[in-house]
Amino acid sequence: MLWSLGVILCALSSAHAQTPVRVNGQRINDHLSALSKFGANPQGGVSRVAYTEADLQGRGYAIALMKEAGLSVHIDAAGNIVGTRPGSDPALKPLLLGSHIDSVPMGGNYDGDVGSLSAIEVAQTLQEKRIVLRHPVEVILFQNEEGGTVGSQALGEGLSNAKLDLVSQSGKTIREGIRLLGGDPDRVVTASRQPGSIAGYFELHVEQGGRLEREHVDIGVVEGIVGILDCEVTIEGFGNHAGTTPMDQRHDALLSAARFIEKVNQVVTSVAGAQVGTVGWVRAEPGAYNVIPGRVTLGVEVRDLDEQKFVGLFHRLQSESEALGKLNQTRFSFAEPIINHPALCDAGMRKLIEEAARSLGFSTKSLPSGAGHDAQEIARIGPVGMIFVPSIGGISHSPKEFSRPQDIENGANVLLQAVLAFDKR
Amino acid sequence: MLWSLGVILCALSSAHAQTPVRVNGQRINDHLSALSKFGANPQGGVSRVAYTEADLQGRGYAIALMKEAGLSVHIDAAGNIVGTRPGSDPALKPLLLGSHIDSVPMGGNYDGDVGSLSAIEVAQTLQEKRIVLRHPVEVILFQNEEGGTVGSQALGEGLSNAKLDLVSQSGKTIREGIRLLGGDPDRVVTASRQPGSIAGYFELHVEQGGRLEREHVDIGVVEGIVGILDCEVTIEGFGNHAGTTPMDQRHDALLSAARFIEKVNQVVTSVAGAQVGTVGWVRAEPGAYNVIPGRVTLGVEVRDLDEQKFVGLFHRLQSESEALGKLNQTRFSFAEPIINHPALCDAGMRKLIEEAARSLGFSTKSLPSGAGHDAQEIARIGPVGMIFVPSIGGISHSPKEFSRPQDIENGANVLLQAVLAFDKR
Repeated sequence: MLWSLGVILCALSSAHAQTPVRVNGQRINDHLSALSKFGANPQGGVSRVAYTEADLQGRGYAIALMKEAGLSVHIDAAGNIVGTRPGSDPALKPLLLGSHIDSVPMGGNYDGDVGSLSAIEVAQTLQEKRIVLRHPVEVILFQNEEGGTVGSQALGEGLSNAKLDLVSQSGKTIREGIRLLGGDPDRVVTASRQPGSIAGYFELHVEQGGRLEREHVDIGVVEGIVGILDCEVTIEGFGNHAGTTPMDQRHDALLSAARFIEKVNQVVTSVAGAQVGTVGWVRAEPGAYNVIPGRVTLGVEVRDLDEQKFVGLFHRLQSESEALGKLNQTRFSFAEPIINHPALCDAGMRKLIEEAARSLGFSTKSLPSGAGHDAQEIARIGPVGMIFVPSIGGISHSPKEFSRPQDIENGANVLLQAVLAFDKR
Repeated sequence: MLWSLGVILCALSSAHAQTPVRVNGQRINDHLSALSKFGANPQGGVSRVAYTEADLQGRGYAIALMKEAGLSVHIDAAGNIVGTRPGSDPALKPLLLGSHIDSVPMGGNYDGDVGSLSAIEVAQTLQEKRIVLRHPVEVILFQNEEGGTVGSQALGEGLSNAKLDLVSQSGKTIREGIRLLGGDPDRVVTASRQPGSIAGYFELHVEQGGRLEREHVDIGVVEGIVGILDCEVTIEGFGNHAGTTPMDQRHDALLSAARFIEKVNQVVTSVAGAQVGTVGWVRAEPGAYNVIPGRVTLGVEVRDLDEQKFVGLFHRLQSESEALGKLNQTRFSFAEPIINHPALCDAGMRKLIEEAARSLGFSTKSLPSGAGHDAQEIARIGPVGMIFVPSIGGISHSPKEFSRPQDIENGANVLLQAVLAFDKR
C-alpha cells in the first residue's frame, strides 16, 4: 500500500515536471458566459445585486462548480460560500483564494466574477491534476462586496450591529440578506478569523482602470489597495433673487463650489503620482433658475496608497478653500472626513506573483488598486496578494466592462502558478 | 345747484393749491402691518401663497380697504380684484394702478403689498380730498403674481388652457384657484383687455435689489423689466470609477460644469452694464462619492433690458463651452432656450415719475427691474410706468425683506403725484 502510493506520487510528480500545469482557459470563459445569465440586463452586463433572486441563482451555479472542483462547500455564518480542499500538512494554516460574484446595479460580467471563477478553476485544476498542496486551500466567494465588502469584513474587521441593520441596495438589511443567503446573522461573529489564522490570500481581479491595456501589459502586480478619504463640504453663501441682485453683490455658493471643483483637479494633479481626487456629487439649494444658490453641499474624495499623501492633499484643499470663499464672501466648512486606510499587499506574495507571471512569459507592471476589494479586509488577518488582468478602456461598473478571454486565462494561470509557488515556500 | 357746486369745486381747487395733496403715510404702513397678519410665518414675513386660505383672507382685507376708499369693487373672470373710480371725462380710457398681495412660500411683507396698498391709498386720498380725475381709475390687485404673473397675464397675453391646468404652488391648478377666488375660469377670456384699451398703468414696487439703498437714492424710475433667457445645459462625459480612473483619463462632466459656471460669471461681467447671469441649479449623475459624474445638467439664466445683449451673451457662452468641452472631451448641449422678452416702460410715464419725485424733493435713479412684474404683462395693452422704493440689503422673497416706512410713504406720494400729472396731460 505505502509503496504503491509512493510510486503513484512519484509518477504524478514526474508528469508534472514534463507537462507544465495550466488552467483550462476555455472552461473559465465558458463559466463566465454561463454565470452572466443570472441577473442579465437586456442591454448586456448583469444586475446581480447582493440578496436578490439573481444573486441566489448565481451563487447556486457557483456552488455547483465548486462541488465539481472537489471542494467541500459550506455557507459560513456571514453568508460567504466557502469551499475547502484539504492540505497534506496539518500544521499549516489555510491559503485563501477568492473574490465575489455580486454586482452593482447595471454592472458588468467581469468585476468579481473573473476572480471567483479563476479561484474555482485553480481548485478544479488541482483536482484534475491530482495535486495535493501542503496547505489546505479555501476558495471563498464573499457576499455583497459591492455593498461595502460585507462578507470579507465579517472575516476581518467584523460586522457591527449597526452595519447589519444597514439597508443594502436590494432593499433588504444586511441582516436579512445574510439570512436569505443561508448565513446566520445572530452568529456572524463565528465567521470571523483571527489575525495570523491564515497563510495568505490571493485575489485575481480585473483592473477596473485602463493602464494595463493602454500600456500593453499582461499582468498587474498590485502594490496595495489605496486608502480613501471622503468628505462632505458645505458652502454657505446668500440665496437671493437672480434678476435683481447685481453681479458684484452676490454671494453665490455655486460659483464658489465650481471654483472648488476646479481646484480639486488642480491640487490633485499638481504632484506626481497615481493619486486621484473627485467631486462625485453636488447639491445646490434652493435650486431654481431664478435664485442664486445660497447653499451648496458636495462630496470630495481623494485616494492614494500613501495615507500621508492623500491626507496632505485634502488639507491643501481645505486651506485653498478659504481663499476661494473670500473671493465672493462665501464660507466653506468641512464635515469630519471618513478615512479608509490603505491596505498594502505582502511583499513576498507580490514577488511570487511577479515571478509566476515572468515564468509564463507575461509582461508585468506594479500598480496600486484604486478600487476597494475584499483583499483589503483580508489584509487584516494575513498577508494578501492581488493579480490584475487588463480591462478594456478601463470601463467598470457598467455593462460595457470587458476583459479579453486570453487575459483572463493568463491571469488564472498566474494565480495557479503563484499558489503552487506559495505552497512550495 | 349748479352755482353752489361750482363754488364747492372752486373752494376745493383753491384748498388743493394751498395745501399740497399727500397720502397718509401712517395709514399705508398701518395697513401693511395689518395685511402681514394673513399667512404670517412664525419666523416673520408671510406665506400667502395664491389660492390658499391666507390668500383669501388677505384679499378679503384688501377688498374692505378698497371699499373704504370709495372704489366699486368686483372680481373679474380671472380672479383679479378690480376697484373702479369713475372719471369726469367719459371719452377717456381708464388709468390702472396696481400690484399683487400673494407671496412666495416664506416670503416677506413688502413684495407686492407695498404697491397694492399704495394704489389703494391713492384712491383713498383722491376720495378724501374729493379730487375727481378726468380719467376713470382702476385699482387692480392681480392674483398669483408669484406663480407667473397669472392675473395680469389674463389681461394681457391671455391664459391658455395649458396654463389654466398648471398646478400652482398651492397644489391647486390655476383653474381651480381662479374658481376659489370668485373668478370664472371658463370665461377667463372676458378679463382680457384689448391693446390700446387703457390710458396707462402705474405700479409701485419695492426694488428687490440693493442699489437704491446702497446709493442713498429715494426713488427708482424703472426703465423697463428685463428680458430673461433660461436654458437647460447638458454636459455628457463618461461616468467611471473614481478610484481606478487616472486623472488624465477622465471625462468628468462635473469638472466641465464647474468650468462653465465660472465662465458664466466671467462672460456676464466682461461687459459694462446691469446684465446678470446665474447658474441656479445643477444635477450630477449618478451622484456618488466614488463615481466620476458622467452627465451633468444645469440651468443657466441671463437677463437684461436689451434682448440683443443677453442673447449675445448666451451665444458667447455656447461658443465658449465648446472650448471647455475639448479640455476633457466632454460634450455640451443646449436645450431650446426659453425667452421672456423685455418690457420697456413708457418714456412719457417715466418722465412723469421723475418729475413727480423731483417736485417732492426726492433723489431719483433710472434703473431696470431685474425681476418680473405684473407691469410687464400690462405693457402689452398700454403704456406702463414703474416706481421703485429702496429695499434694505436688497433682500427679496424672504421674511427678511424690508423697506423703511418713510420710503414707502415717499413712493406712494410719487405715485399720487404721477397720477395727478398723468391726468392733467
